[in-house]
Amino acid sequence: MTTYKIAVIGGTGPQGRGLAYRFATSGHTVVIGSRSDERARDMAADIARRSGEHALVSGADNTTAARSADVVILAVPYQGHAELVASLADQLAGKVLISCVNPLGFDKRGPYGLDIADGSAAEEAQRLAPEAKVAGAFHHLSAVNLWSGAEFLDHEDVLVCGDDEHAKTVAAALSCAVTGRDGIDAGALRAARHLEPLTATLISINKRYKTRSGIHIVGLERD
Amino acid sequence: MTTYKIAVIGGTGPQGRGLAYRFATSGHTVVIGSRSDERARDMAADIARRSGEHALVSGADNTTAARSADVVILAVPYQGHAELVASLADQLAGKVLISCVNPLGFDKRGPYGLDIADGSAAEEAQRLAPEAKVAGAFHHLSAVNLWSGAEFLDHEDVLVCGDDEHAKTVAAALSCAVTGRDGIDAGALRAARHLEPLTATLISINKRYKTRSGIHIVGLERD
Repeated sequence: MTTYKIAVIGGTGPQGRGLAYRFATSGHTVVIGSRSDERARDMAADIARRSGEHALVSGADNTTAARSADVVILAVPYQGHAELVASLADQLAGKVLISCVNPLGFDKRGPYGLDIADGSAAEEAQRLAPEAKVAGAFHHLSAVNLWSGAEFLDHEDVLVCGDDEHAKTVAAALSCAVTGRDGIDAGALRAARHLEPLTATLISINKRYKTRSGIHIVGLERD
Repeated sequence: MTTYKIAVIGGTGPQGRGLAYRFATSGHTVVIGSRSDERARDMAADIARRSGEHALVSGADNTTAARSADVVILAVPYQGHAELVASLADQLAGKVLISCVNPLGFDKRGPYGLDIADGSAAEEAQRLAPEAKVAGAFHHLSAVNLWSGAEFLDHEDVLVCGDDEHAKTVAAALSCAVTGRDGIDAGALRAARHLEPLTATLISINKRYKTRSGIHIVGLERD
């Protein structure tokens, strides 16, 4: 298995820490990024305790984290996303940038996908960090399941989209840390327009059925 | 099991005939609708041959089909959708209208979801047939699988959305004819904005993996 040095921007949030925990447990080197380097280090220590003595986890402010890594995971709320990506554009040049960002709104009728001028958060990130190799992935995983002790979320699929084949390959390979198998190639980066708001539908299902739902693609040969 | 009298508008197309076959096999009364009543009757005869001697299948022009049924399935291409729904608005008043319409475009980078002024085809249908009780469902099923002899597509889920509880309940119950179990309540009618274009992602997966993919929701109690 190829191991990567992965910065998880937003690594103190529920989705970010869950992914960081999975990557660390699988032998990748992880740098938690946060606006506060102190909170990042605290979370890194927490993840290291859970991931076993061989885990390689550290914490830093977002800029330092992005600079130090080969692969950068964007696991931040959509609010503030554009400013953050723009501020990191220099650090992201030439690197694989994997967006897990779900631009969602909530009103009386439940969760819904926000209208994004660029089509999706992943495409917005590509515009603001034009030299990054952007993929979208990891949108549909429950933060609670990620943080749980379950060995793999092996009923779930990670859907990967992107226009850069290398970025898609890395994102598909990193999915192994979460589900125990490669992510599924779901097409071009613009497929993020469909993948991101699908999370609103899963949250709606969660509320209706009091569960933590996820997506599995049927019809592939492994079934 | 409650049985319904179901008109399948667009019932001579691949998706429509596949759904009609499933409904007829499960004991519902089916009227195939088409622009040409002759083609509708030919398809009805074909489905009747496949569905067994007790199947109740007939064919008629779209207007007659819609008028005669309790539940109307819209299984038409998005092209011409608005004109068709507007022309049927009188027949649809007070009835359950289930939209399976996927507004998709195709270009060099593959399939993608079209921008729809109303948000989705299902919402467009609701605007044009304001007295219909609209639900969205059956977007993600392979027409080839529907038409196959498989007893049930029991790895797949039908996701149902709608603002009318009765329409959602009927759509969820009709899903049993296809998957062997109720459809999943995926939220308000506007969730069709996420469900319809997801079909583009499935088609993209089909091309990449040479398969007929579908969606299964994990995390529900049946798993």
